[in-house]
Amino acid sequence: MIVVMKPGVTQAQIDHMVAQVESLGMKAHVIVGTERTVIAAVGSKRDGTKESLESGPGVAEVVPISAPYKVASREVKPETTVVTAGQLRIGSAQIAVIAGPCSVENEQQILSTARGVKAAGATGLRGGAFKPRTSPYSFQGLKEEGLKMLAAARDETGLAVVTEVVSPEDVDMVAKYADILQIGARNMQNYRLLEAVGGSDRAVLLKRGASATIDELLLAAEYVLDRGNPHVALCERGIRTFENHTRFTLPLATVPYLHQKTHLPVVIDPSHGTGHAYLVADMCAAAIAAGADGLMVEVHPDPPHALSDGAQSLNFDQFAAMMARCVKVAAAVDRRL
Amino acid sequence: MIVVMKPGVTQAQIDHMVAQVESLGMKAHVIVGTERTVIAAVGSKRDGTKESLESGPGVAEVVPISAPYKVASREVKPETTVVTAGQLRIGSAQIAVIAGPCSVENEQQILSTARGVKAAGATGLRGGAFKPRTSPYSFQGLKEEGLKMLAAARDETGLAVVTEVVSPEDVDMVAKYADILQIGARNMQNYRLLEAVGGSDRAVLLKRGASATIDELLLAAEYVLDRGNPHVALCERGIRTFENHTRFTLPLATVPYLHQKTHLPVVIDPSHGTGHAYLVADMCAAAIAAGADGLMVEVHPDPPHALSDGAQSLNFDQFAAMMARCVKVAAAVDRRL
Amino acid sequence: MIVVMKPGVTQAQIDHMVAQVESLGMKAHVIVGTERTVIAAVGSKRDGTKESLESGPGVAEVVPISAPYKVASREVKPETTVVTAGQLRIGSAQIAVIAGPCSVENEQQILSTARGVKAAGATGLRGGAFKPRTSPYSFQGLKEEGLKMLAAARDETGLAVVTEVVSPEDVDMVAKYADILQIGARNMQNYRLLEAVGGSDRAVLLKRGASATIDELLLAAEYVLDRGNPHVALCERGIRTFENHTRFTLPLATVPYLHQKTHLPVVIDPSHGTGHAYLVADMCAAAIAAGADGLMVEVHPDPPHALSDGAQSLNFDQFAAMMARCVKVAAAVDRRL
Amino acid sequence: MIVVMKPGVTQAQIDHMVAQVESLGMKAHVIVGTERTVIAAVGSKRDGTKESLESGPGVAEVVPISAPYKVASREVKPETTVVTAGQLRIGSAQIAVIAGPCSVENEQQILSTARGVKAAGATGLRGGAFKPRTSPYSFQGLKEEGLKMLAAARDETGLAVVTEVVSPEDVDMVAKYADILQIGARNMQNYRLLEAVGGSDRAVLLKRGASATIDELLLAAEYVLDRGNPHVALCERGIRTFENHTRFTLPLATVPYLHQKTHLPVVIDPSHGTGHAYLVADMCAAAIAAGADGLMVEVHPDPPHALSDGAQSLNFDQFAAMMARCVKVAAAVDRRL
Repeated sequence: MIVVMKPGVTQAQIDHMVAQVESLGMKAHVIVGTERTVIAAVGSKRDGTKESLESGPGVAEVVPISAPYKVASREVKPETTVVTAGQLRIGSAQIAVIAGPCSVENEQQILSTARGVKAAGATGLRGGAFKPRTSPYSFQGLKEEGLKMLAAARDETGLAVVTEVVSPEDVDMVAKYADILQIGARNMQNYRLLEAVGGSDRAVLLKRGASATIDELLLAAEYVLDRGNPHVALCERGIRTFENHTRFTLPLATVPYLHQKTHLPVVIDPSHGTGHAYLVADMCAAAIAAGADGLMVEVHPDPPHALSDGAQSLNFDQFAAMMARCVKVAAAVDRRL
Repeated sequence: MIVVMKPGVTQAQIDHMVAQVESLGMKAHVIVGTERTVIAAVGSKRDGTKESLESGPGVAEVVPISAPYKVASREVKPETTVVTAGQLRIGSAQIAVIAGPCSVENEQQILSTARGVKAAGATGLRGGAFKPRTSPYSFQGLKEEGLKMLAAARDETGLAVVTEVVSPEDVDMVAKYADILQIGARNMQNYRLLEAVGGSDRAVLLKRGASATIDELLLAAEYVLDRGNPHVALCERGIRTFENHTRFTLPLATVPYLHQKTHLPVVIDPSHGTGHAYLVADMCAAAIAAGADGLMVEVHPDPPHALSDGAQSLNFDQFAAMMARCVKVAAAVDRRL
Repeated sequence: MIVVMKPGVTQAQIDHMVAQVESLGMKAHVIVGTERTVIAAVGSKRDGTKESLESGPGVAEVVPISAPYKVASREVKPETTVVTAGQLRIGSAQIAVIAGPCSVENEQQILSTARGVKAAGATGLRGGAFKPRTSPYSFQGLKEEGLKMLAAARDETGLAVVTEVVSPEDVDMVAKYADILQIGARNMQNYRLLEAVGGSDRAVLLKRGASATIDELLLAAEYVLDRGNPHVALCERGIRTFENHTRFTLPLATVPYLHQKTHLPVVIDPSHGTGHAYLVADMCAAAIAAGADGLMVEVHPDPPHALSDGAQSLNFDQFAAMMARCVKVAAAVDRRL
Repeated sequence: MIVVMKPGVTQAQIDHMVAQVESLGMKAHVIVGTERTVIAAVGSKRDGTKESLESGPGVAEVVPISAPYKVASREVKPETTVVTAGQLRIGSAQIAVIAGPCSVENEQQILSTARGVKAAGATGLRGGAFKPRTSPYSFQGLKEEGLKMLAAARDETGLAVVTEVVSPEDVDMVAKYADILQIGARNMQNYRLLEAVGGSDRAVLLKRGASATIDELLLAAEYVLDRGNPHVALCERGIRTFENHTRFTLPLATVPYLHQKTHLPVVIDPSHGTGHAYLVADMCAAAIAAGADGLMVEVHPDPPHALSDGAQSLNFDQFAAMMARCVKVAAAVDRRL
């Protein structure tokens, strides 16, 4: 930790801060520059150290040096984690394709979608049974009935089921039916929920919050890992910016950046990331070229009549066309779908 | 709802959309412009209508007309809601001042803070017993022990206790000790939690999420109101932007804007909104001048040794100086502290 | 234009607004909904109409319907514009690759870079002679001397020269040496400069401002087109968001979105878009997969000793490796480098 | 400058970086931590040092320590600069109020506005003669004719004229009529223009760009100061964020933050900062409570018929009511209007 002192700092203030650094169990190195004096604080730190030093006399700024996440860091585990569920692999040469509707609406809808996306090459089936909706007056999902429909679709098609869990008390029930527990963007910092899925033996797909930094995403993953569940995949689904022509802004540089910082694999969701079906195929191809380990795509048999997210859902033909294109891009970067 | 058609739209596409509007139970008005044709869809709408129309043939855009929140709207209740807890009033001529540490650390700390802020004129005591922290390795709060300390401080000082609840299963326990249940920014869209406090008889202080729009904030409030709890105050605590000299960006225009749109009262938290103690007093004064109904301020007996948020906490002298200044500004806008 | 009236609007207010719409030369259609009344204003509009209507009595909101740009719109010219300069093509099956240093530093540097990038397949040479720098104390470029060095490098290699112009009075001088005039992100709304390059016969590469919406970018292009210069390519170079692990956030959905809205070709600059050399190659591949018509990449013979932007510059080996990878991705999407 | 090395860095890499630091004329201090090694580089630095060090072997990050601006810093001039023009003072106990229309439209409009705002207590008159407009089809201003009308209004009322200059070649002409040259937000990084007004003897009002950091704003001021013009006032007019209920987001913490960092006075523009007339008065009061040295407010005799920005302009009655309120708030913080 680097404590930057203000210009015109007094020797008494420097001495005070050196004493404070030492009282926190660290070693202090004072470096007198031409314009500023800095104190390097070295040694194991407890939580709150930065805040504590920041309010000291004469302190301009405190700059932390090491990353705040530990278990998620590639520094501690150089090889990429492969998350596995049935035929689905996230993190291997084969790119995971998780497709399906925003919401499970009825048995016919989810079954026909499962067949449709399986035929085009998907290995996972998405579908919401518990729907966190911005408005209390919006469709909230079929709940356990929806989970049963998803499980039935898996039994027929072999697709791994990926579905969202929104509350700690539902984790066991959702885990009974699902292969991968999804944590949605709104819940990325719902720590009780993270701890609960951290105690499950199901794999977890953790979506980035719309205004979360990458460090915050990795610290959220750290909550799950810290509870003993190592099967975590991360998902970039777009961030909130000033842009108004897309629903969110989808930053694909997240992929190579995360690959540098963490061993956890990375999935891209271009449906939420753009909000428009006509942008999804190009962003799928781009995600693969950028090195993504998986795609998560909304597909619906009849988007204009979807109960939610119709505008960003592909129909079966659009999905098949996207897959055909992505097969070629994947081959170009030595991956496969 | 206004359906804007693309240029060059065909009559068949227009007819198709008119039929779709009518099949959704609305009446369609076609307006042919010089450059664009629009279809106005009038009548009660079910959820998903916008999405459904958006993916129709020839549709460029669908523009909703009425606000998505109902019970929170000032249109349905013109007079301002006054949230009351003991001597605390949020929404009256008297401005609420809720002060205290980020975290309850021990009995001595919370008692001395309660006495200190009471002496300077506060009417509410804040203090976290359940702390949602970005890192799993940070101090997570004293939990029920902390709640007991808060209740003891209230018993002595008469200050209303405002404290955060982070999970639905804790609502009853927190409500046993607290006067006002705080929903933190990270949980603004934790709908299960919103429903749970909606079923409580305690007042609720709902903080805006760091990247939530005002409509999303009001829809979150709507979850609480819709469950039957009308005692809701809103809190602006800063949004995430590109600015890096403050912890968040604190948009005070939220105050008059919310006062136009909703009858719920508005509290400002300049401690989180700026992240720097030396900016807090000026932002408190500005919030009052902008018409805020309350302030929420972090105060600690010894900020450099706080377990969390020390850099943004005032000490007792700074708090008293801030209050003295705000008393004058409040008088200038016909309010009082 | 759709004028949305407030709830509880009076008939007198509606009549007033109808009269105002008609006084502005438009036809008014009143549509009475269950919750709101809207007035559709149809007909050719003059500038300021929206503002004028917004401040009318009882008006809640005014929603414009047609896009504000005209000549740039794909609606008026369905086929993609191909910008041509020497062997460089932006907008054809062949993807333009414009590479070179941030700043022209000396003859040796620019010549060796031109040779290096040409050998690896580039068709354009970038290099700043006039450098708009955030600090007045930073290196400001070699000015006309730098332009001469760029021209000499073109004479030897045949690469088209792309270089920035920062002031209207420099346009003629820069046009004497350059094949394509670059308008930098900071100058995207420097309208005098846009008008000046609009009067030139050189092609223009217009970079998106760091907080410009797509509509604002297209209106900036409209300034150039409106002055009679049709040779305009657009460049996405990243937007300013809350993300702090990259220099800017690079939104590749800009590519397919612009391809829908405009006939102007689209170039991606991943060097500024990410700020880190180790992210550039992946973003180049992703840009091509997303359909980009060109790449703009910073390359330097010796990045650690560059006078500017060293951290985001590739060396020759890195550039060649990137090109080899992009050749394969381009083939996968039926393009070529 | 602090060079943070990656974990697992080799001694050879450390030695390499020490040599590089020394070759750049700085002294290197190596500090070996438990997790990371950092090298503190001390001494006068030339431009490009940070970039140069960043791309060295084993380097994770380079953290600059001292602020990049010099002349604008309060560290070099502790007392606040007072910008003076006629009766207008920016930076003294008297708060400047600069009011007037967005655009000068005709003699009658500007004269009646000047009289109206003068009567209510304004000391400056704003009005655009050169209008930078997003669309080339919007009203672009009356140019020199408009300047003459402004000067005539000053001659009658004694108000100081503040008007925008958009191009270096216009500086002399605008300076002939204006008391204060305004640099608009879009031109904050138009460095040629900054240099041009830096060579003028007129005072300068420099508006913050919509996505400029505070450091970038101060470095833009530095361009003006560095050319020898010390009469610079800064203006916060809102930043671009995800918020969509206001035109921009107005961060009033800018005021006390700038007061800490610079001796230049600070003006707030709530008209552009919010985009809605009904939010302006509250934000004016808040700005004064936050310590602003001046207000810039759009006022028009007949906002619904303004040629630009009607929705955010006050009429005379609204302006007078705002002033009455602000007089009281100013007194509460020991200032006056």
